Amino acid sequence: MITVHGYAPSGNCWKVAQILRLTGHAFRWVEVDSNRGETRTANFLALNPAGKIPTVVLKDGAVITESNAILAHFAEGTAFLPPPGLARTRVFEWLFFEQYSHEPNIAVARNIVSFLRAAAANADRLEQCRIGGERALGVMERRLAQHDWLAGPGPTIADIALLAYTQAADEGGFDLARWPGVRAWVARGLALPGLTPLPRAS
Amino acid sequence: MITVHGYAPSGNCWKVAQILRLTGHAFRWVEVDSNRGETRTANFLALNPAGKIPTVVLKDGAVITESNAILAHFAEGTAFLPPPGLARTRVFEWLFFEQYSHEPNIAVARNIVSFLRAAAANADRLEQCRIGGERALGVMERRLAQHDWLAGPGPTIADIALLAYTQAADEGGFDLARWPGVRAWVARGLALPGLTPLPRAS
Repeated sequence: MITVHGYAPSGNCWKVAQILRLTGHAFRWVEVDSNRGETRTANFLALNPAGKIPTVVLKDGAVITESNAILAHFAEGTAFLPPPGLARTRVFEWLFFEQYSHEPNIAVARNIVSFLRAAAANADRLEQCRIGGERALGVMERRLAQHDWLAGPGPTIADIALLAYTQAADEGGFDLARWPGVRAWVARGLALPGLTPLPRAS
Repeated sequence: MITVHGYAPSGNCWKVAQILRLTGHAFRWVEVDSNRGETRTANFLALNPAGKIPTVVLKDGAVITESNAILAHFAEGTAFLPPPGLARTRVFEWLFFEQYSHEPNIAVARNIVSFLRAAAANADRLEQCRIGGERALGVMERRLAQHDWLAGPGPTIADIALLAYTQAADEGGFDLARWPGVRAWVARGLALPGLTPLPRAS
């Protein structure tokens, strides 16, 4: 069986559980808390020397990493990843946007504010996250004000990848009321059959 | 004809020129200097509202963005992107690693040190780049100490993507002598027929 090593409140790990459910793969989940150093133990580093989650072990023992590469791996051949051509390229544009322009702002702000609870000590960093995060949400709004899904006429892994942390943007201080197209898309995405919401910060 | 809007010294733009040459596509290059605000003009924003380079205009007028999505677009069906399965997933693992863990450290350090010439005013940021960049080079060294190429037995777009800024890592203060496998791979990659080196900071 497929094994996912992940931390339940992590959006990057959430992506993996969602695509496995959406594509009908059974899997086992092993909880690993990266905020408590559990990705830096000798056992975990033997599995993934980069010490990062999510880490997926396939049935044959092969280990795959990088949440968006994992999304593409399991979505191949399904409607969540169109065949090669412009439609597929649109999906990858959003996947790279997510890792470069969205996650480092919106996920990092959430971690500082709601998990580390260290907003005051990271005021400069948070301000950079606010500027970058608002810009990223603006890019999404431009698309979602006029379309139901990010990359094409139906949901793809671009939506799974961006939903991961957008659904919890408020936990990093972003009020989605300013981006109504994004807010409506979050509700639409979370209503997809099989999707489960990201756990809130406790 | 394909048109590439890019800034010649940018590694992200360099990737696009390389894959187009390697896959035999003729293209026109329009120079856009992002450090001088040329990606924020009304004309450029009409082309790409995100105001980012590289921006590619295909023959039919479709616009594609995100350097690594562009790499995958043109590599599809060639040896630079293996067919779906674990070999392809290995390529995408490196592409996402590049945008999340490598470029924000090694390219940003180069821009601060050698283009903006503002190292003193950005000491804290540079220190973060140093820590993250050394970690990224260590991840690459683990692979390249024992293999010729990053993602498989031959060169792929994973190598093109990581070569982009690794070849200029010294311009951000990284001495590749500490990562001999990486240094040998840079020489190997730049010797691929058709590849041209990234211009040095003037």
